[in-house]
Amino acid sequence: MENITKILFDLLMMFAAAKIMGEIFERLKQPAVIGEILAGIILGPYVFGLIQPAHADTFHIYQVIAEIGVIILLFTIGLQTKIDQMMKVGGTSLFVATLGVILPFFFGYLYTLTTEHNTLESMFIGAAMVATSVGITARVLSDLGILDSRVARVILGAAVIDDILGLLVLAVVTGLGKGAISYVKLALIFFEVAGFVLFIILIGKRLIFRMAPRLNFLVSKNAHFTLALLFCLGFSVLASYIDLAAIVGAFMAGMILAELNLELNFSLKFESLYDFLVPFFFVVMGTQVDLSVFTKFNLIGSALILTAFAILGKLIGCGVGAFRLGWKEASLIGVGMVPRGEVGMIVASIGLGMGAISSNLYSIVIFMVVVTTLLTPPALAWMISSRRLGKRED
Amino acid sequence: MENITKILFDLLMMFAAAKIMGEIFERLKQPAVIGEILAGIILGPYVFGLIQPAHADTFHIYQVIAEIGVIILLFTIGLQTKIDQMMKVGGTSLFVATLGVILPFFFGYLYTLTTEHNTLESMFIGAAMVATSVGITARVLSDLGILDSRVARVILGAAVIDDILGLLVLAVVTGLGKGAISYVKLALIFFEVAGFVLFIILIGKRLIFRMAPRLNFLVSKNAHFTLALLFCLGFSVLASYIDLAAIVGAFMAGMILAELNLELNFSLKFESLYDFLVPFFFVVMGTQVDLSVFTKFNLIGSALILTAFAILGKLIGCGVGAFRLGWKEASLIGVGMVPRGEVGMIVASIGLGMGAISSNLYSIVIFMVVVTTLLTPPALAWMISSRRLGKRED
Repeated sequence: MENITKILFDLLMMFAAAKIMGEIFERLKQPAVIGEILAGIILGPYVFGLIQPAHADTFHIYQVIAEIGVIILLFTIGLQTKIDQMMKVGGTSLFVATLGVILPFFFGYLYTLTTEHNTLESMFIGAAMVATSVGITARVLSDLGILDSRVARVILGAAVIDDILGLLVLAVVTGLGKGAISYVKLALIFFEVAGFVLFIILIGKRLIFRMAPRLNFLVSKNAHFTLALLFCLGFSVLASYIDLAAIVGAFMAGMILAELNLELNFSLKFESLYDFLVPFFFVVMGTQVDLSVFTKFNLIGSALILTAFAILGKLIGCGVGAFRLGWKEASLIGVGMVPRGEVGMIVASIGLGMGAISSNLYSIVIFMVVVTTLLTPPALAWMISSRRLGKRED
Repeated sequence: MENITKILFDLLMMFAAAKIMGEIFERLKQPAVIGEILAGIILGPYVFGLIQPAHADTFHIYQVIAEIGVIILLFTIGLQTKIDQMMKVGGTSLFVATLGVILPFFFGYLYTLTTEHNTLESMFIGAAMVATSVGITARVLSDLGILDSRVARVILGAAVIDDILGLLVLAVVTGLGKGAISYVKLALIFFEVAGFVLFIILIGKRLIFRMAPRLNFLVSKNAHFTLALLFCLGFSVLASYIDLAAIVGAFMAGMILAELNLELNFSLKFESLYDFLVPFFFVVMGTQVDLSVFTKFNLIGSALILTAFAILGKLIGCGVGAFRLGWKEASLIGVGMVPRGEVGMIVASIGLGMGAISSNLYSIVIFMVVVTTLLTPPALAWMISSRRLGKRED
């Protein structure tokens, strides 16, 4: 019983801190999400120590609530993203994602190699540099109200492709770590993932249009909302099951339902879930920001260089990939793809667990993740406000 | 990573099962909540074994989500319950609660005493018979659309008082178990709880009316909804902290905000949270229904007798307490107060933990809890539909 009191109190604290800091940042004309992450840092082990990720039994609960939050976030963003419009910029997204994977990988790989580490270590660092964490950028685009811009669509499309490429890179690198790459496994991953994405793009929307009018036999209140939630959770589980990020599934589920959004008012109905659950994702992320790496002075040089490469890799790679949209939009896309978030950490921790990378290299990756995550929201907000990016339809 | 996939899959399963079974029961003109509890029983260890309460690490997560669900349930019900209207039936509620605590306690105490158990054991059984679990009844009243009836108000008021009386009884009995009742502690509990309730009734509403117009300086989107959520979580934590059920705090927070409900549209905004989170409470409750006690044939006789006393205790006690409302409403109130739910289990497990009651007596209490919980929703639905209870204002 005391335990549930403590857990409810923690949730109250996180929610209150997120909303207060969000309010402050909105007043500063900044995205609320910066405030929410800072709220987590303040509550976390390096400032007040009120929320301790080391207390695994309770923290695991907060992580699950955070995961549900980010699933709701990406689903809601999917609801505002029509598949047809995504397909129109599909070529650009593919180009952005591909270059944005190749450059950071080689930057990370080559830099690590020159600092007296072996090939496997260097490949792991390269792999940790690859995957963009779309949660941050998507939330910033949503906070700034430019989700229906071409820039947003290219970023979201590229983030999905990026997650797939990242999965393949990780499979190659862990294969190397275990002694041999399994080409069968690689092919399996590729077909599984490609099948999932193609199914959604080609069949998903038509299926929904067929099914929707037949669902009026349901007597439950808000049956359409319930079905949308089932769709959202179902695709998240499916994506997670084939080792994609659950949020990729949630985003796709949202896109499929985007056509019905206006008619069935999903965005409005999901708004309360968004307001309640999404902040937990960013607060929990904030509590996990490991500030101790900033005090490891022997590493700070390498960490700064690697972080610079991580930023330049995406800026140049994604910027060049989006070059045909013009300098303004290409640079926004480059910046939007910078944050690495939890995916980089997961890759590094797999490497650490396999004994493939040292704890020093692990700390350097954490530093890179923290800096790219914290820099992106203010950078994007500043670029967008100073350039007054219009809502341009293509 | 596999772990989060499993957790998301479990949540999907529970949510889907709850909604499917809810739909089926609505078609049978029964409250959806019966379907949701059955969904839990079906997923639980005694049927398909897909959700295992014994897997404490993941099940604990579902319990927290369930707790948030029942907090949202009682808050939403509070939003539809104005304090003034509750106060009008306050005398009746007090009478209903008091008799509904005294009778079951003495029935349980005396019956156990006659079956060759000692005084302490008998008092623990009496204590486990005391507290009504208001979640079930509140949800049934809500499913049947009669929350704004006088019957509903008397039940909700009595349930709050009942929780307070139950807390005092438990303090007395555990005090006896430890060798001495601490009258200081009893007085402390009484004043803490009375202070909490009086503060809410006397000050809460006025405070809200003062504060509400001044909150327009907030720039965050949906700031009023956020504040309502903070209120809901805050009072839940407070209630939980002084050992009341968290839901009593949530209900009171809802009541305070009830006056602003129409103006600020809270009920609509909380609807999505309700639809998503509340089913988890009843499914998780269903997974914990321990059917093994039904196979302990040596206990079944005593279990049936104790259950009969548990039902009669509330029926007679609460029925007599509400007698001045007439036979129709008094009998509904009596039935509405029957379910014991988790509170009875907690009391029994405290007794088991202290060595004050045997595991056989514990099983008998579980049997009583399961039967009273499962019988109430269909009984209420049947009584209400057959009597066509009008929405009578007093």
